Amino acid sequence: MNMVQRGRFITVEGTEGVGKSTNIEFLCSLLKDKDIEIVLTREPGGTPMAEELRNMLLQPREESVSEDAELLLMFAARAQHLENVIKPALERGAWVISDRFTDATFAYQGGGRGVDENQILMLETLVQKGLQPDMTLLLDLDVEIGLKRASARSAPDRFEQEKVAFFEKVRAAYLARAANDPLRFAVIDASVSLDAVQRQIAQAVNRFVESDNG
Amino acid sequence: MNMVQRGRFITVEGTEGVGKSTNIEFLCSLLKDKDIEIVLTREPGGTPMAEELRNMLLQPREESVSEDAELLLMFAARAQHLENVIKPALERGAWVISDRFTDATFAYQGGGRGVDENQILMLETLVQKGLQPDMTLLLDLDVEIGLKRASARSAPDRFEQEKVAFFEKVRAAYLARAANDPLRFAVIDASVSLDAVQRQIAQAVNRFVESDNG
Repeated sequence: MNMVQRGRFITVEGTEGVGKSTNIEFLCSLLKDKDIEIVLTREPGGTPMAEELRNMLLQPREESVSEDAELLLMFAARAQHLENVIKPALERGAWVISDRFTDATFAYQGGGRGVDENQILMLETLVQKGLQPDMTLLLDLDVEIGLKRASARSAPDRFEQEKVAFFEKVRAAYLARAANDPLRFAVIDASVSLDAVQRQIAQAVNRFVESDNG
Repeated sequence: MNMVQRGRFITVEGTEGVGKSTNIEFLCSLLKDKDIEIVLTREPGGTPMAEELRNMLLQPREESVSEDAELLLMFAARAQHLENVIKPALERGAWVISDRFTDATFAYQGGGRGVDENQILMLETLVQKGLQPDMTLLLDLDVEIGLKRASARSAPDRFEQEKVAFFEKVRAAYLARAANDPLRFAVIDASVSLDAVQRQIAQAVNRFVESDNG
């Protein structure tokens, strides 16, 4: 019997306006050129129920959302996403590219809101049961430049309404996580030209694919 | 300065069709006769956002809901409920009556679905930070009789679609919790006439009010 090789799980992270969408598209085309089946997804979201939760989390609302509720909703959406999309795709051998994953919770809820990191770790263990991304691309950019780009694009959601100081903390938390796990993270300087950004991404992905022996 | 005395938190629990609604109405009228300000609420729910989560949890849906997601959504709704309704009411001196609370999570998700009790305890600590009901009325009834009553009332929700064996486990978990915390719980035999049920409730409530010295 032929055993299917488990797919790889790649996440793309970064603060507002760093160019995630454009570069995720580029990443997908890179992998498709290598004949890899891709499942492109995002967090919060990725399943009908998780997308409903995404709307609840992102839409500005009159009722104040407690930090605990926000954190638990993120992980509830993640539990659905893992169970119904990510794990089945990896098991049939597809590669999963997710626009954000748990690093975003550590960065936004942990770094940005100041939620106790141990609570996030505890929920990560409960929901992921050891599953981690195989590679994470962190697009890094000056916060004010990113916010200017993002605000030119659309009306701000509940997170984008936060102030610069919030996103500075988010960025710092992302960079700290990358520094603590250099094997998983590739930090991409997103301040340079799109061409130069994509050369960095291609390099990181090629290095990952070459070193990846299942 | 006059300090406001913190209100009391009373929860009403039980499986399907035990008569919670009717008897909660009776409980409220009992307390109003004692000139106590009542806030009547329910779980999952109690705030606009928590009610949205209630709908997500109760409506039968095509997408399978993972046990982890269900558990986390229950506690996310609870975090909103505590922060925006229960705590403010207790602080201004009102008594809060909640149709279900965390005992239901231990009974339905723990007893019924077999979720690890330690996970529920961990989330209880995260969200409640030590807050517990002051009194819990557990309406106890043979599961099959209760399900017959409930099915005569309305179309079954996602939980009511479960089988008898599920509710037997839920009931057993409720009774085990009551046995472990006899000071907080009053177990009400809901198999007798409505009059006889309400005599038991009145007795339990009067005992609680008399022994309650703030």
